[in-house]
Amino acid sequence: MKLRISHLDIDASEPIVLLHDDDCIELGVKENDRVRIDGPARSATALVNRSDTLVERGEVKMPDSLIDSLGAACGDEVNVVYSAKPDSVRGIRKKMDGEKLSKEEIRNIVFDIRDGKLAKIEISAWLTSLYINGMDSEEIAYFTQAMVDTGDRVIFDRSPVFDFHSIGGVPGNKVTPIVVSIVAAAGLMLPKTSSRAISSACGTSDFVETFCDVELDANTLKSIAEETGGVLAWGGSMNLAPVDDMVIKVEYPLGINPRAQMIASIMSKKMAISATHLLVDIPTGTGTKVKTIDEAKGYARDFMDIGERLGIHVECAITYADQPVGNAIGPKLEARECIRILEGQKHPSSVVEKSCDLAGIILEMGGIPNGSAEARRILESGAAMKKFREIVAAQGGNYDIKSEDLEPGKHMVEVFSTKAGYVHSVNNKDLVSIARAAGSPSDKGAGILLLRKKGQRVERGDVLFQIYAEVESKAQRARDIAVRLQPLQIEGMLIKKFTSVSVRE
Amino acid sequence: MKLRISHLDIDASEPIVLLHDDDCIELGVKENDRVRIDGPARSATALVNRSDTLVERGEVKMPDSLIDSLGAACGDEVNVVYSAKPDSVRGIRKKMDGEKLSKEEIRNIVFDIRDGKLAKIEISAWLTSLYINGMDSEEIAYFTQAMVDTGDRVIFDRSPVFDFHSIGGVPGNKVTPIVVSIVAAAGLMLPKTSSRAISSACGTSDFVETFCDVELDANTLKSIAEETGGVLAWGGSMNLAPVDDMVIKVEYPLGINPRAQMIASIMSKKMAISATHLLVDIPTGTGTKVKTIDEAKGYARDFMDIGERLGIHVECAITYADQPVGNAIGPKLEARECIRILEGQKHPSSVVEKSCDLAGIILEMGGIPNGSAEARRILESGAAMKKFREIVAAQGGNYDIKSEDLEPGKHMVEVFSTKAGYVHSVNNKDLVSIARAAGSPSDKGAGILLLRKKGQRVERGDVLFQIYAEVESKAQRARDIAVRLQPLQIEGMLIKKFTSVSVRE
Repeated sequence: MKLRISHLDIDASEPIVLLHDDDCIELGVKENDRVRIDGPARSATALVNRSDTLVERGEVKMPDSLIDSLGAACGDEVNVVYSAKPDSVRGIRKKMDGEKLSKEEIRNIVFDIRDGKLAKIEISAWLTSLYINGMDSEEIAYFTQAMVDTGDRVIFDRSPVFDFHSIGGVPGNKVTPIVVSIVAAAGLMLPKTSSRAISSACGTSDFVETFCDVELDANTLKSIAEETGGVLAWGGSMNLAPVDDMVIKVEYPLGINPRAQMIASIMSKKMAISATHLLVDIPTGTGTKVKTIDEAKGYARDFMDIGERLGIHVECAITYADQPVGNAIGPKLEARECIRILEGQKHPSSVVEKSCDLAGIILEMGGIPNGSAEARRILESGAAMKKFREIVAAQGGNYDIKSEDLEPGKHMVEVFSTKAGYVHSVNNKDLVSIARAAGSPSDKGAGILLLRKKGQRVERGDVLFQIYAEVESKAQRARDIAVRLQPLQIEGMLIKKFTSVSVRE
Repeated sequence: MKLRISHLDIDASEPIVLLHDDDCIELGVKENDRVRIDGPARSATALVNRSDTLVERGEVKMPDSLIDSLGAACGDEVNVVYSAKPDSVRGIRKKMDGEKLSKEEIRNIVFDIRDGKLAKIEISAWLTSLYINGMDSEEIAYFTQAMVDTGDRVIFDRSPVFDFHSIGGVPGNKVTPIVVSIVAAAGLMLPKTSSRAISSACGTSDFVETFCDVELDANTLKSIAEETGGVLAWGGSMNLAPVDDMVIKVEYPLGINPRAQMIASIMSKKMAISATHLLVDIPTGTGTKVKTIDEAKGYARDFMDIGERLGIHVECAITYADQPVGNAIGPKLEARECIRILEGQKHPSSVVEKSCDLAGIILEMGGIPNGSAEARRILESGAAMKKFREIVAAQGGNYDIKSEDLEPGKHMVEVFSTKAGYVHSVNNKDLVSIARAAGSPSDKGAGILLLRKKGQRVERGDVLFQIYAEVESKAQRARDIAVRLQPLQIEGMLIKKFTSVSVRE
């Protein structure tokens, strides 16, 4: 059927066309069916949206991106015909039915997501099926490989290539620049790519970009890493396993992150950067992604198993995550706390310990004995700070960076304890909500500074934490939320009292 | 945040707004997040689509339907703020996790779908979870009740109200007008609502509308049913359990129809029409929705159990569906075959038998003994045809209707057998594909006339079936598909030969 192209002023994440109801009947297509459009340069498929008012008969409206990809222009006549669903939809159906998928089926799904051939509702059905029915480690390995093949790979002239990854979920986890600096100072190469926050308070890239550029292309990343041994890039600025970013757009509103998708997503980014040795940090605790040690062990087994299938040496560290790492949450606050540790400050000790423990495992993978002690020596000697300065400067930041350069937002409110006792628990999720309400991560100065953590003694009227914001109204809103949520629970030493019960016969 | 409204020329099945990337950052919203828009008349929520080219800063683009519902106009300034996900998303997550939902949770989901508060990806996740994790009969009963409550109910002055429903899947199932006419002629009331084809070759309403009007409002349906005892309406023309139609838009492209959704969908339409007695016909066989007798029994148990919970007396009939009912597939062809039976023709006997058996069960539910024999007597006496004429005339059709009035499309091609033997099997799905390629159901004259059915003797060169079309190119295309698919399998009497195997020790 010949139809005339006109412009549709939306750019959906899936390729759509708008057709008149009567033309749809003639074409034999329904809403969400597909049509193939034969343009002068090439053909493309798109999902059908119907209307009898917004489009005329004989007209096909489409976004400019689609017009361009056809090599056509507004007003051109193009041939439009019904197009069957892609084969990958059958693979999705199979996973819905709980069946194991073949390498080829997984590959089809991944490539069709990348090429925009699957509708959002189909991707949603895929993720929901993965969430419910899962994948075995052979499937996850195929899945990972397919995701790698959708994007670019960075090949280094140096080998081995070390890498590490923290599964998200614990706020204030600012260890990455410290670990990278220690490992690079020891002479190993660790080209670290990180992410920005999706639903958390602050991703590594969100705080690193407060003191240097994180949007590096693959060549820049390669040369900085080969020269300094380290790099702190935003993974999203390269075309590494790009299908992951398309999936996240659907995962995020569903609030799910299927285990198979999560593992394949992480492993594919690491393969794309040619990692030969990988440490996976699995923060475990209530209020994080992984709740129990048993669950964490399950993840660890999967990562190691899949690493073996893909030729990557994987080790895992299960870390404590019942409360934030360190005291600071939010871009500039985290950056300041991180740099203070590099400058030699001993507190918060949780940041020092976690950084040295993780760096230590990587050093040992690289053949350096007594890893953790050696890592601490490198940190305390100032060698890590020197390496950090080199990396920052290579990424366009100031070589003479100091922690005091990073100033939090000028609007600060304090939250007080309404009773005396001990901090019995710290709710990670509540702290994330408060930090986000304050403006984190887009307002760089926004966030939370914890003055009390678990187990500490608190008197009535003590400041529990401070909220920083760049906009006064956000500080107030965050405080209101804090007062409502009470993220720090204060109890007496006696948590629960049992009355003695006498038993009579 | 104050933004200026402008027009977006798409009317998606979910309410969307287009916002500039920078405004999204300021609002703290991501793609697929929600915003609340406060209009002069009322507020509404919509899903966020982002762009940095198609919309300016300070502008919010939205479809006219949304502008109207806010009581606003293009150019107006409205307040736009972040809005949390509706509670029902938590219920969807619970079903993903395989948990049982409460009455309230199910109700929230159903009402939020009706009110357009859930995104398509959320509805897709809901249906996928239902497909995989299912519902028990208590949940399905709540689900049904909630769906009824989203729409109108038809209340009759007569009681009892009989009804029946055939689960889709078997082509050529043209029994509805015959069953309704027999039952109404016996003095019972059966206000039948039917559907149009979604993915099948021809729904009941698709062929009934070739000889009378099926788009009746609730009042017309009520008065025709109370006066004549029968009616043959398109269910979609009334506001009965309207949420079902919104769900179908997502189900259809996924190619799934979760059991719980299917049962609730059928039962809700029947409750909305105040049925007191319901017969469910479950066509069973390869190539239909229900493949085996065991599966059919499972459905039957569910329908009766849920009927009991909802106060509807339900009986079920498991019918043979390994091949089409009768010989005709497609609107006018089915209408012609259906009316011929009412006129007294004895063939195809499968149509006569199925109609009388189903009508017979309904008569017995109404206290009339020997139902099937009585149904056949009513059919053969001409009383059913007389009643059919009354109903057709009441629906604006011709009282003097004759089967010859219905002429199939003038382009006819024949498909021949390439070998001699017996018809071993008839593939329903292939016939549907061929009939749809010929133009059915939108081209009323398009379809298939089977000249041979299962078990019949065929000589090489015999005509197996005829394809009718209104457009010559569609007839040719359908024939090409028929030659490729070979929907009738011809075999010798010996289907498989085993060679004897001698066992040595």
